[in-house]
Amino acid sequence: MSALKIGIAGLGTVGAHVFKILNENKFLIEKRCGRSLKIVAVSSRDRTKDRGIDTSNVAWYEDAMDVAADENVDIVIETIGGSEGVAYELSLATLRAGKQLVTANKALIAHHGAELIRLVENHGGNLAFEAAVAGGVPTIKGIREGLAANEISAVYGILNGTCNYILSEMRETGRDFAEVLEEAQALGYAEADPSFDIDGIDTGHKLSILASLAFEALPKFEAVTISGIREITLLDIVAADELGYRIKLLGITRRTETEQIEQSVEPCLVPISAPIASIDGSLNAVYVEGDFVGQSLMVGHGAGGGPTASAVVADIIDIARNHDITPLGVRHSDMAKLPVGDLSGRRGRYYLRLMVTDQPGVIADATRILCDCDVSMQSVLQHSEDPGQTVPVIMTTHDAVESSVHKAIEKIAQLDAIQEKPYLMRIESFGG
Amino acid sequence: MSALKIGIAGLGTVGAHVFKILNENKFLIEKRCGRSLKIVAVSSRDRTKDRGIDTSNVAWYEDAMDVAADENVDIVIETIGGSEGVAYELSLATLRAGKQLVTANKALIAHHGAELIRLVENHGGNLAFEAAVAGGVPTIKGIREGLAANEISAVYGILNGTCNYILSEMRETGRDFAEVLEEAQALGYAEADPSFDIDGIDTGHKLSILASLAFEALPKFEAVTISGIREITLLDIVAADELGYRIKLLGITRRTETEQIEQSVEPCLVPISAPIASIDGSLNAVYVEGDFVGQSLMVGHGAGGGPTASAVVADIIDIARNHDITPLGVRHSDMAKLPVGDLSGRRGRYYLRLMVTDQPGVIADATRILCDCDVSMQSVLQHSEDPGQTVPVIMTTHDAVESSVHKAIEKIAQLDAIQEKPYLMRIESFGG
Repeated sequence: MSALKIGIAGLGTVGAHVFKILNENKFLIEKRCGRSLKIVAVSSRDRTKDRGIDTSNVAWYEDAMDVAADENVDIVIETIGGSEGVAYELSLATLRAGKQLVTANKALIAHHGAELIRLVENHGGNLAFEAAVAGGVPTIKGIREGLAANEISAVYGILNGTCNYILSEMRETGRDFAEVLEEAQALGYAEADPSFDIDGIDTGHKLSILASLAFEALPKFEAVTISGIREITLLDIVAADELGYRIKLLGITRRTETEQIEQSVEPCLVPISAPIASIDGSLNAVYVEGDFVGQSLMVGHGAGGGPTASAVVADIIDIARNHDITPLGVRHSDMAKLPVGDLSGRRGRYYLRLMVTDQPGVIADATRILCDCDVSMQSVLQHSEDPGQTVPVIMTTHDAVESSVHKAIEKIAQLDAIQEKPYLMRIESFGG
Repeated sequence: MSALKIGIAGLGTVGAHVFKILNENKFLIEKRCGRSLKIVAVSSRDRTKDRGIDTSNVAWYEDAMDVAADENVDIVIETIGGSEGVAYELSLATLRAGKQLVTANKALIAHHGAELIRLVENHGGNLAFEAAVAGGVPTIKGIREGLAANEISAVYGILNGTCNYILSEMRETGRDFAEVLEEAQALGYAEADPSFDIDGIDTGHKLSILASLAFEALPKFEAVTISGIREITLLDIVAADELGYRIKLLGITRRTETEQIEQSVEPCLVPISAPIASIDGSLNAVYVEGDFVGQSLMVGHGAGGGPTASAVVADIIDIARNHDITPLGVRHSDMAKLPVGDLSGRRGRYYLRLMVTDQPGVIADATRILCDCDVSMQSVLQHSEDPGQTVPVIMTTHDAVESSVHKAIEKIAQLDAIQEKPYLMRIESFGG
């Protein structure tokens, strides 16, 4: 079989690591592929930078588009990033040319997955994006192939290492959000502009890909309800601990009883006994619930050059092995049109943080309002007593309907004693 | 594309569940395969038993061999079990006929994998055995494809749900081995003859398959050093807990610095903080360490009809999708001939249980012997004091060479005060 000729567009951390793996593990990988692989082209604007790789024997393009246009290239590795601009244009050009596209770009798939899949089917190329979700952990393959016998009912997970690192650090070191974020930025764990991570957008991109795979609907990023971790305080972390929970930023997608698909990204309380509670630091974790397999969990490094490139190269190996895999598991025309579920009908437990003026009757008032809205309180924590000052009151509820909880909170917020907008989190009990 | 015609040999729990999944999730599975699947034949001796499935439209054979011989059958599902006898003969016949064989039979692959792979390559059929390791968890696919970019350095895991259940129950309920085993047998979690499970043989079968995949050597069950959990007492569980460990029966395979392959099955102490320590009950867990991906973990249900059949059907779907996957990742002729590593050179920490006559100087004697053998003691636990009676003494060592520890134990066993054969376990610190 002839050599598979590879072009790498973008030589940042991931692109350079792809180059590195293909060289360092060349013997092993070619044995596994049963054929030889050859990097024939790369692109990057800066040719002078030391990336620890020797590109002297490959074509060098300053314009990534030239990688797709190079007739010598069979398979284009897009490691530029971003849902628009060069990454998008390059992807279109690659697929329109009937070539194979391998990408680590979650934003691209979340926003343009439907269009790209259509191009694959019309032009005979292919598209692979294992690295787009949970880095080195083979979650895409796991769901699309490993669990393909199952009707999936839910997928949820820790999909952003930066957020998980920040939340773990806050708990372990007792420092507040801003301080830990600043340190994470200094250490390179968080971007200078951290909003994609800490506001949950990155998790949302990944979740929409998982939902698409699990439920065979085209990715629909706009359907994801997203809240990030900016509002979480050390107080919440400590209170959760006292109540027997950990706070995790989770992406959750579920098929509801009425055959709607819920997709949400939000910080949740999970029981300390749930395995997902012990996934700390920058690790990622993905749970899948299937009708025959039950619960299945995959854990590993979700970011960084090595793990991400490991997934990119796994896709390249699949292609080299001629595993002709349908990117989202089923053909475009077989995609279900599943209605978007809204979460207002969710029934579950909730965590509520109120900042109140310490005066008699506040808790009684709040409890009465909850009760009037059919929300029954399970526990209340108020440690400090400081008459006249603002103090935190933490409440948890029994099972309640989400829309009722929101109604209650609106009313509670209007009480004179309430000093800040009440903060609400879901309690998810899975596996705990 | 024409329908894929399936024959199921054996209608026990797994076979019946395969039938069930293919019927209940037919619409979903055919969408995923892009073609139709049809069960055309089954075999079982007992036609009267109610299995909750309707076999009226398929050929029924009393002799499993007839399933392989049926010209209408493209793919044979072997769910009979056992490394020899019908399962083995049927597998040979299926592969000699150039058909596809899907099996859940770890003993078969562990003992005859090399021969079966050769038949696949000579006759053009294929062989798939995702269900043979960790049931529903896609570990085979995960290693062979998902992590295919990596040089694997180690794979280890909890591979037998029965043992993990027994060890978890002993710890949680404070009961001894025999009592928990008896209960597990009554509940159907353990076989009437439990030796395959509790003596570590089942774990050994699975480990030899994982080692083969990870290190691209033919499965070599004889090379696995095996000890089971019969000798573990409640005392060990409690002492481990006190020292900050859990006891797990682990299958471990590693590439040593001298490029040898170690394969062992044995109860080990793992730190409570290691994620594998919290995998309780009948769950299975598999860790893989790769050079670029780092550590990756897969967890789920390793036994039972649903999870096992989920993996069998995943293999069927791969075949229906024409993913022409090489069973062990590389061709027979590309398999490495890796020398069998012996564990005597292992350097690590150890747990030692001595049953001694409570008299002055015993611990000093034992410590001196350890010291003479270059083994340095880290901690010693002796709770009860009961002069003249037999009491347990628990010791842990600092890093030491295994052969030295064995030498020391031989000498310690000869001390007058020693009342039972000393019991040794490895302490494995991975991830903790």
